[in-house]
Amino acid sequence: MSTADPARLTGEQQLRRRAAIPGLLVQTPYLAWLGLQVQRYEPDDVATRLPFRVELSNDGSTYHGGVIGAVIDTTGALAAWSNHDFERGTRSSTVSMALQYVAASTGGDLLCRARTVRRARELVFTEITASDESGRVLAHGIQTYRIA
Amino acid sequence: MSTADPARLTGEQQLRRRAAIPGLLVQTPYLAWLGLQVQRYEPDDVATRLPFRVELSNDGSTYHGGVIGAVIDTTGALAAWSNHDFERGTRSSTVSMALQYVAASTGGDLLCRARTVRRARELVFTEITASDESGRVLAHGIQTYRIA
Amino acid sequence: MSTADPARLTGEQQLRRRAAIPGLLVQTPYLAWLGLQVQRYEPDDVATRLPFRVELSNDGSTYHGGVIGAVIDTTGALAAWSNHDFERGTRSSTVSMALQYVAASTGGDLLCRARTVRRARELVFTEITASDESGRVLAHGIQTYRIA
Amino acid sequence: MSTADPARLTGEQQLRRRAAIPGLLVQTPYLAWLGLQVQRYEPDDVATRLPFRVELSNDGSTYHGGVIGAVIDTTGALAAWSNHDFERGTRSSTVSMALQYVAASTGGDLLCRARTVRRARELVFTEITASDESGRVLAHGIQTYRIA
Repeated sequence: MSTADPARLTGEQQLRRRAAIPGLLVQTPYLAWLGLQVQRYEPDDVATRLPFRVELSNDGSTYHGGVIGAVIDTTGALAAWSNHDFERGTRSSTVSMALQYVAASTGGDLLCRARTVRRARELVFTEITASDESGRVLAHGIQTYRIA
Repeated sequence: MSTADPARLTGEQQLRRRAAIPGLLVQTPYLAWLGLQVQRYEPDDVATRLPFRVELSNDGSTYHGGVIGAVIDTTGALAAWSNHDFERGTRSSTVSMALQYVAASTGGDLLCRARTVRRARELVFTEITASDESGRVLAHGIQTYRIA
Repeated sequence: MSTADPARLTGEQQLRRRAAIPGLLVQTPYLAWLGLQVQRYEPDDVATRLPFRVELSNDGSTYHGGVIGAVIDTTGALAAWSNHDFERGTRSSTVSMALQYVAASTGGDLLCRARTVRRARELVFTEITASDESGRVLAHGIQTYRIA
Repeated sequence: MSTADPARLTGEQQLRRRAAIPGLLVQTPYLAWLGLQVQRYEPDDVATRLPFRVELSNDGSTYHGGVIGAVIDTTGALAAWSNHDFERGTRSSTVSMALQYVAASTGGDLLCRARTVRRARELVFTEITASDESGRVLAHGIQTYRIA
């Protein structure tokens, strides 16, 4: 009745842990308040949607840049988790992120896609694009995320 | 009867317009929800405080990175406005921002300082530091803000 | 025999001006020393190659990060020029750039691709990827370039 | 006659190793070609100078942005090394860097200052400013450097 070595996860255990992340993440206080939805969570390929609310805006229709930044950050983090090897640890944080705000939003939901550019030992490099519902790019970013 | 040329503001008009910005900004929907407070608004030198609330956190005590990013973005924007020449226009947006998350917060208010590195014609370059109440740096960023 | 209004360029004049940029750029002193080659220069889609030389390295085989940064910066700038409307001016500079160094190079030429994410009035937002000859990504960046 | 545990360096050994870094770095091929000089190398506080040469320019007088980026990257790296604990390893690389080009240079040497914002376990966060000889800021950056 020995338990499995935590450093030797089966493929199934890895998949189950990975799969649990989005549900855990969106229940954390700030993301629950934002109302972020995970729409796609494939290995290294993630999509989220943020339903529009006036409280997320500057002026009733344009998202505050900080809201877009939070969604980009979180969607990049999900890309990092989406193919993570849980034998390498679970302590995580964003190390750095750079954003370009390329157009102002004009109402409607925010759609975000992230992909992994590369996985190094502790660091995962992601790229993230935020668009409006018509597909127009609003912001674009690169993120360095650490899980160890 | 004659109105002043809008492109020829007196020094007093400039000062009044600048001084109005913080009050307007913190009433916009997202910032009002955050509860951001402007504590210092000198030319090119701004400080803000975000009182801690569980809703702003990942886990009840650590700020979500996106909240810190929003405060950094807004504090940088305030630095840009704090010495702005209103004859140059009032349409504004963050063009780009890069952040480093250098330590996790562990509860308590978030304190943010921004200064202007340089003003070009339409672009203002700012640098922003976010700390906890003990002065420990949590995040550090550079921002390009546009007012035109 | 009046000359054409400089602000009213024909389509052919636009194309000719755009087409002249790569040749001019690679003859500027630093890029000529680097030996940068432009391999593809389609609208918003540019590829460059940097033939390896020991002088560009840290140690005889790994590119100095600053060399990779210079190639990323220049390739992004070429993407900005590759579809530029010359009626909007020709004074140019990089406003901001963020880079991730995701893997160390191990010899061989550096290949760089850039695309335009969005064109605003004076600002062009580009994304750039640098790879080795096997296609492995070495660095990844986003750039804000200004032409006015 | 036991040798010292390599993981237990004396204070003097630490100082000697740290002190050796600038001399080693400026002899690497690319930096030797640039001609970078280290003018100050105090713990977490570094200054460098790049003597102007036409080959480093776009046009005979303005530095190529990639040259400024290389100097910023290297000066940040030196700040990371300047107070490094050599028991934590010596494999190093820049993880990410974000730059703002705030003014064009107009000839003369490039002066660069870097300081450490924070040291985490493997990551060092630095801030770097490049100026001309009159003290005018030309570029400003933040860097995440890894030594492990």
